[in-house]
Amino acid sequence: MSTPLKVALLGCGTVGTQVARLLADQSADLAARIGAPVSLAGIAVRRPNKHPDVPAALLTADAMALVASDVDLVVEVIGGIEPARTLLLAALRTGKSVVTANKALLAEHAAELFAAADESGADLYFEAAVAGAIPLLRPLRESLAGDRISRVMGIVNGTTNYILSAMDETGSGYAEALEEASRLGYAEADPTADVDGYDAASKAAILASLAFHTRVTAADVYREGISAVTAADIAAARTLGRTIKLLAICERNTGDNQESVTVRVHPAMIPRGHPLASVSGAFNAVFVEADAAGQLMFYGQGAGGAPTASAVLGDLVAVARNRVAGGRGPGESAYAALPVRPISMASTRYHVSLDVADRAGVLSTVASVFAMHDVSIAAVRQEGRGDEASLVIVTHSAPDAALRSTVDKIAGMPVVRDVVSVMRVEGEDL
Amino acid sequence: MSTPLKVALLGCGTVGTQVARLLADQSADLAARIGAPVSLAGIAVRRPNKHPDVPAALLTADAMALVASDVDLVVEVIGGIEPARTLLLAALRTGKSVVTANKALLAEHAAELFAAADESGADLYFEAAVAGAIPLLRPLRESLAGDRISRVMGIVNGTTNYILSAMDETGSGYAEALEEASRLGYAEADPTADVDGYDAASKAAILASLAFHTRVTAADVYREGISAVTAADIAAARTLGRTIKLLAICERNTGDNQESVTVRVHPAMIPRGHPLASVSGAFNAVFVEADAAGQLMFYGQGAGGAPTASAVLGDLVAVARNRVAGGRGPGESAYAALPVRPISMASTRYHVSLDVADRAGVLSTVASVFAMHDVSIAAVRQEGRGDEASLVIVTHSAPDAALRSTVDKIAGMPVVRDVVSVMRVEGEDL
Repeated sequence: MSTPLKVALLGCGTVGTQVARLLADQSADLAARIGAPVSLAGIAVRRPNKHPDVPAALLTADAMALVASDVDLVVEVIGGIEPARTLLLAALRTGKSVVTANKALLAEHAAELFAAADESGADLYFEAAVAGAIPLLRPLRESLAGDRISRVMGIVNGTTNYILSAMDETGSGYAEALEEASRLGYAEADPTADVDGYDAASKAAILASLAFHTRVTAADVYREGISAVTAADIAAARTLGRTIKLLAICERNTGDNQESVTVRVHPAMIPRGHPLASVSGAFNAVFVEADAAGQLMFYGQGAGGAPTASAVLGDLVAVARNRVAGGRGPGESAYAALPVRPISMASTRYHVSLDVADRAGVLSTVASVFAMHDVSIAAVRQEGRGDEASLVIVTHSAPDAALRSTVDKIAGMPVVRDVVSVMRVEGEDL
Repeated sequence: MSTPLKVALLGCGTVGTQVARLLADQSADLAARIGAPVSLAGIAVRRPNKHPDVPAALLTADAMALVASDVDLVVEVIGGIEPARTLLLAALRTGKSVVTANKALLAEHAAELFAAADESGADLYFEAAVAGAIPLLRPLRESLAGDRISRVMGIVNGTTNYILSAMDETGSGYAEALEEASRLGYAEADPTADVDGYDAASKAAILASLAFHTRVTAADVYREGISAVTAADIAAARTLGRTIKLLAICERNTGDNQESVTVRVHPAMIPRGHPLASVSGAFNAVFVEADAAGQLMFYGQGAGGAPTASAVLGDLVAVARNRVAGGRGPGESAYAALPVRPISMASTRYHVSLDVADRAGVLSTVASVFAMHDVSIAAVRQEGRGDEASLVIVTHSAPDAALRSTVDKIAGMPVVRDVVSVMRVEGEDL
């Protein structure tokens, strides 16, 4: 067996603690699987005196010194852009392989990180950055490397999924459900990154990059959070046998002469019979569609210390094996360099629920606005109640820009008393 | 870019045709992903004149000569033990990396094949051997390499799943459903390998080997097919809110002082609300449970030319990348060498449906037999009908041997008129 591989662990929060625990508990198995023992050389934390559960001798506040020491592998679970970026660049530039769970960093600085890895021949693995324990990035990058992925669609944020599940089950409003989620520890003190879709957008960027061999950053992702989802939206969805989920959707568009990609994160109505509809609480699930493979689904725990640590350790075994056996895992593959188009050019469907005046000609007036924008209507449901009527329209696929203009125009019509709910629609069957 | 990699394709049936097609259609993408172009050097088939769709210059009846030529990679989609075994050993011994979809071969001769691969430093990949397009083996072998897998349970045979789904939907008997499946092309002319569970057992052996780092062969797998499943069994399951599926189950047992493994394939009742219950037709789905990751599910098309070819091509890209970049993928890892125990020592639950004489004391007499064998009863349902009564008993977990002895004993009791259905029970909730 080879000489031990030295690991630097950066960060010791929920995930880092579990990584350290698994490294200790599984040391014999890890050594057998890697072909060499792994030893934890040090753990960099902000305040070494705040970690009584970890051997004090391992702790250091000087992360850069730890990275610069004679370690072979660096595991980063600090999160955020800095100091993670500087530390990982330093590691990669000196030929140290990196395993990171940092989605924000990957979604913004992948190009720079991969360039550093390529230059020194180091590995850069990040399975834990998306969908926690679910093996998803390795399948996209390796298992489907001989196929052509057309679509990735999934629930990749547990907090928003918990909130939307609660709203659906209890009929409560967004504020109330968020409060409950915070109370139970499903939402952070500052929930912005989750509820405004930043977290899901970072993950979508990473997924799209791998799926389409194209560099996609968080800034390329259309992002709409869940704070505007109302109890009325949920009720409207329920009437139609649907529920609302925050989805991350990465699509290859082949309509034009030029292939392109759209990447978006937004709430959408999906049929209650759709497999994603039954994904509740903190679970994640992702559908992948590829030309030859067809539809695939991956399901599991999307967050949490132990599940995320499982993904980190899987990567650690892989990069460690590469050290021992020689060779290197697949690096960034952005050769396709497809243009990333704005959501306005994506093809989507809309559900529009209106309160309209209940008099002759209203439906035809409203319908004419859709026709004017070349948006085809898939289903209409009108119900009178006194001198008002409820009018629900579900469209066929059309460019998002056309749908948005249609809704803007309708909202300004005198016969339309109120736009109760506007929501994109995803998943099979109407 | 490096010099082209030459590929030998052995077999050109449903899967081979698709592999050849994808190699041609995707050649530019494959070259970019691998870092070198791939060229198909030849296709070995039994009768070269029977493949009008393939360029005649590529076809040869001499598979061994093709393997012995200057190819870099060998893709085998012939199936069966010979001549596949001899051909792949010849390839591996001369340092040629192998991609195979051959579950029967892997489940019987993995040791020999891996030894040959290790000796020459070649790669041996076989993602397509289990669950078609579903990325499952790579996640087990690599993504979960830092975790401890406790259980793998899934539907891995499409033919039997189609038949059981049909029986459940139409109430038809086994023979009728099999006939329909044959007529529609879901069952082969000789369906033995599928309906008697041989195919699933091979796959279970492969899954258990990877999950538990232990060499498990098809002979180690307890195997019970679906031909004995009756319409009465399905009806009994339905009454209890359950359905019947042919499951492959690989378990790590920690009960004794000595860890061990049991691997079994048999029909089992699962709750209709269980995610595996809604997997219908030719689809496959597999649950994996690991200590840190928790529950994971993988779902997709388990068979068919294009889906299986997708998995083959993914492996082909991986082994080709290893050729170009240097290095080698993870080989066999059977270091744990856990003992494989017979199903009699596995812990299972039974559902037993009896027709009994409807008189005082029958329930207590029957129940005493369970108690005598130390089998705890979870639920009982008795319903009188004239001088007979229907008695349904569902047990808690107990050693399979104890359950079997209990049922044998009960079947011989004078008060028991008929044993209507005996079926193992899997999945949460009773």
